[in-house]
Amino acid sequence: MLDVQQVAIVGTGLLGGSIGLALRAAGFRGRIVGVGRRREPLARAMELGCVDAVTQDVGEAARGSGLVVLATPLRSFKALLAELAGHDHPGLYVTDVGSTKQQVCAEAQRLLPHPERFVGSHPMAGSERQGPEAARPDLLRGKPCVVTPGPGSAAQAVRVVRSLWETLGMRLIEMDPAEHDRRVAAVSHLPHAAAVSLVLAADRLGGMEIASTGFGDSTRVASGDPSVWADVFMTNREAVAAAIDRFIQELSRFREAVAAGREDQVFDLLQRGKALRDRWWEGFSRSTGPSV
Amino acid sequence: MLDVQQVAIVGTGLLGGSIGLALRAAGFRGRIVGVGRRREPLARAMELGCVDAVTQDVGEAARGSGLVVLATPLRSFKALLAELAGHDHPGLYVTDVGSTKQQVCAEAQRLLPHPERFVGSHPMAGSERQGPEAARPDLLRGKPCVVTPGPGSAAQAVRVVRSLWETLGMRLIEMDPAEHDRRVAAVSHLPHAAAVSLVLAADRLGGMEIASTGFGDSTRVASGDPSVWADVFMTNREAVAAAIDRFIQELSRFREAVAAGREDQVFDLLQRGKALRDRWWEGFSRSTGPSV
Repeated sequence: MLDVQQVAIVGTGLLGGSIGLALRAAGFRGRIVGVGRRREPLARAMELGCVDAVTQDVGEAARGSGLVVLATPLRSFKALLAELAGHDHPGLYVTDVGSTKQQVCAEAQRLLPHPERFVGSHPMAGSERQGPEAARPDLLRGKPCVVTPGPGSAAQAVRVVRSLWETLGMRLIEMDPAEHDRRVAAVSHLPHAAAVSLVLAADRLGGMEIASTGFGDSTRVASGDPSVWADVFMTNREAVAAAIDRFIQELSRFREAVAAGREDQVFDLLQRGKALRDRWWEGFSRSTGPSV
Repeated sequence: MLDVQQVAIVGTGLLGGSIGLALRAAGFRGRIVGVGRRREPLARAMELGCVDAVTQDVGEAARGSGLVVLATPLRSFKALLAELAGHDHPGLYVTDVGSTKQQVCAEAQRLLPHPERFVGSHPMAGSERQGPEAARPDLLRGKPCVVTPGPGSAAQAVRVVRSLWETLGMRLIEMDPAEHDRRVAAVSHLPHAAAVSLVLAADRLGGMEIASTGFGDSTRVASGDPSVWADVFMTNREAVAAAIDRFIQELSRFREAVAAGREDQVFDLLQRGKALRDRWWEGFSRSTGPSV
């Protein structure tokens, strides 16, 4: 169980709101403070029971907290870390939920007076829906959460940050920020680029009138917030380009087998894809349980 | 309401089973006969209430039916049409549920003594799950169904086949078989090729351990039956190759914008993709209702 008197969650949207709900559902007894710039989502988060108190002053929230969780879009981290630097105290640990980790970890190193008390996180859970209304106490349960300590991270910082995600029932995996960014390019950023490109291609090819459930699933992530995702792509350019290149190689191989009428090759690709996907899904759904 | 005394559903898996359940749920009063080669799925379909009677003899079923629905994999259609040819009678109409339409329509033309009583169909509903256990009475409701009459189709055949899908609450769209195959390449076959290629690329890039819900949705269709899908690709080679080419163009444009750090271009692609996807989803989910 997370052992701090107060947690400040900066950003009370889908992820921040879900963290608050899940902490409460897990029996966390400390105070949960929601921090944000705009009054309306803060009020909604309060109303929905995601947080116990709200403030627009991140410094005030940090002074009373043992842990600050940055759950705002990537682009806001630099200013928030600079702000936190002015309100540091020896019992304050900081993490974030950003989809890329190299940039925020470098910023924390540069901006915080005690960067050893920062450890980056990436809870791998989301939805194309936004805002505290979409928050759910079970959004994070059983999902993978990557924690990316740096060489200078304090052992206590790693413990506190891990205990947050463990309290929420997540499956923890540690790796360095660069490794995280490469892997997440393959399983999150590439599928997003593919979904957007599928929609654009289907529109050009004039098929959307007859599209159904399969198309809907394959393209769901394309309904995510464009400005949030533009940040993600801009902070992981090399790995995303490499992942798209690899994907185009696989697609081209598939295309050639189809065009040449090589049913054996097409079948082999379909069978390998199914086997890998089924094995992954079995493990993933066992870990997240039937509520997903 | 479909107005025949008896319907024969050849193949009582996911689709055939769901057609039976949905006919019954819609208040259809005729007899529903399930036809198949293997005893076990027939017995399961009977047990689950998908059909009123079962037989392994397609000729027998056809003789007593006003409508035969072929709901088996594409590769089986040729033999089934040849078999039906020997049991034709003036009140017998035939349709199918195949994912490509040019081949089966050409086969019907060639093999049936009265091809004017055949009209192809493609109810756009499916699941990665298989068999009568996965059948649901609401699988088809509100989904698009393409009906592909040929120049020689009898008006009464079009009426009977349309009334089947209308009884099931589907949204009907008529087009010729070639047009269908081009469009479905874009919104069904291409997403399938993309899902399989995403899984193969993610496996190579080593990210699957941290994959989560987004990856699961984007790749769900890759868990479909490889032999069924190999048939689909083999009967729509040109249109699939053209759709993959278009998709690779879109992906390459996205890749170049990311690699060049052009945030404005990346944002624009993300925003256009989201707008098109949101508009499509709004119409689709309004039509299918909340149960999907």
